[in-house]
Amino acid sequence: MVDPTRVPEPGSLLVGTDGVLTGRTSEYVKHLGDMGGVYRDREAYESALAELGPDHVVYRVDEHRVADGPGALTIGTSTLLPGRIGDEYAVTRGHLHAIPDRAELYHCLSGSGLLLLETIDGRSEALELAPGKAVHVPGHWVHRSVNTGDEPLVTLFCYNTDAGQDYSLIEQAGGMASLVVPDADSGWTLRRNTDHTGYAGSTA
Amino acid sequence: MVDPTRVPEPGSLLVGTDGVLTGRTSEYVKHLGDMGGVYRDREAYESALAELGPDHVVYRVDEHRVADGPGALTIGTSTLLPGRIGDEYAVTRGHLHAIPDRAELYHCLSGSGLLLLETIDGRSEALELAPGKAVHVPGHWVHRSVNTGDEPLVTLFCYNTDAGQDYSLIEQAGGMASLVVPDADSGWTLRRNTDHTGYAGSTA
Repeated sequence: MVDPTRVPEPGSLLVGTDGVLTGRTSEYVKHLGDMGGVYRDREAYESALAELGPDHVVYRVDEHRVADGPGALTIGTSTLLPGRIGDEYAVTRGHLHAIPDRAELYHCLSGSGLLLLETIDGRSEALELAPGKAVHVPGHWVHRSVNTGDEPLVTLFCYNTDAGQDYSLIEQAGGMASLVVPDADSGWTLRRNTDHTGYAGSTA
Repeated sequence: MVDPTRVPEPGSLLVGTDGVLTGRTSEYVKHLGDMGGVYRDREAYESALAELGPDHVVYRVDEHRVADGPGALTIGTSTLLPGRIGDEYAVTRGHLHAIPDRAELYHCLSGSGLLLLETIDGRSEALELAPGKAVHVPGHWVHRSVNTGDEPLVTLFCYNTDAGQDYSLIEQAGGMASLVVPDADSGWTLRRNTDHTGYAGSTA
């Protein structure tokens, strides 16, 4: 029997295509100064840092959580601003869930870009995001958002609150295996990240 | 170590505001003939059945699933057509998750209506759905969609695949405690369902 006084209120949310989640319970911002080591072109990163300052916003996240425990969901919006560091399009840090079998939904509300997905054994996918497109990220996929457009890339996400985020896996691997860079014909293309040393735990 | 051959491919989905989920792995339709006992006005239900036929569509669900297990999500769209049976606006059957602590997201893509939510101990909420509005349903809430408008009510949903649906709880309780009926001023209002006998397991 669940204690009825411990059943939280449902949340009524307004999901803005500008990424503002009215009714959120928490929010955070990642600034350029937080992104050390994320982009492969160190010189371009240092130069952007000098030009734009460490408080320049890279992405914002609004979240709604009402419970813990295995059945609880975190619902939120991610707003990744456009830009490039060297040849690399703007990215979120990216993560594998700390409980790796946890899946995630990304539903694009505005802007354009892609979700870059890699398994620790070397599989790779780049799935486009545009308004109305969504990506179902199964468990065991490292994933990050990439903004290849000129507008903020806004996604609605949903995942199990207990999933957690392992950000160190990508860092220890020298970044994700693929970089998303401009291409004259198709707008963007994937380039092999020569710093990538493989993910810890890989059997490949 | 996860077996890498068992990690499913990510899903690239197109989420139509018309409720069509391109890329779905399954779908189902609930027809008027499936809705026996759901609406309280039996005479109005029988009359609608005679007029529209048992194959008249009440709602459609498109779903995308790629895995089982505790971390897996089911992502889908629900399209609830407009209509009334007697005084009651069109509803989905409604359910409590079979694993009751599992939460769910409903994000409205088009149409207008509400999510009706009740705990087994007698708490009740009616939260409006309109494009851009979303409802975070925590675990332990019985919930159903209600279409109070003239257009299909389309929502994107996301929940843990292992959650399951208990449809019998509402049936055995004589329906949900509240009915959603027209109101001249505000469009809709809640009316007490006199058939409702309380939910099994209630300590209230």
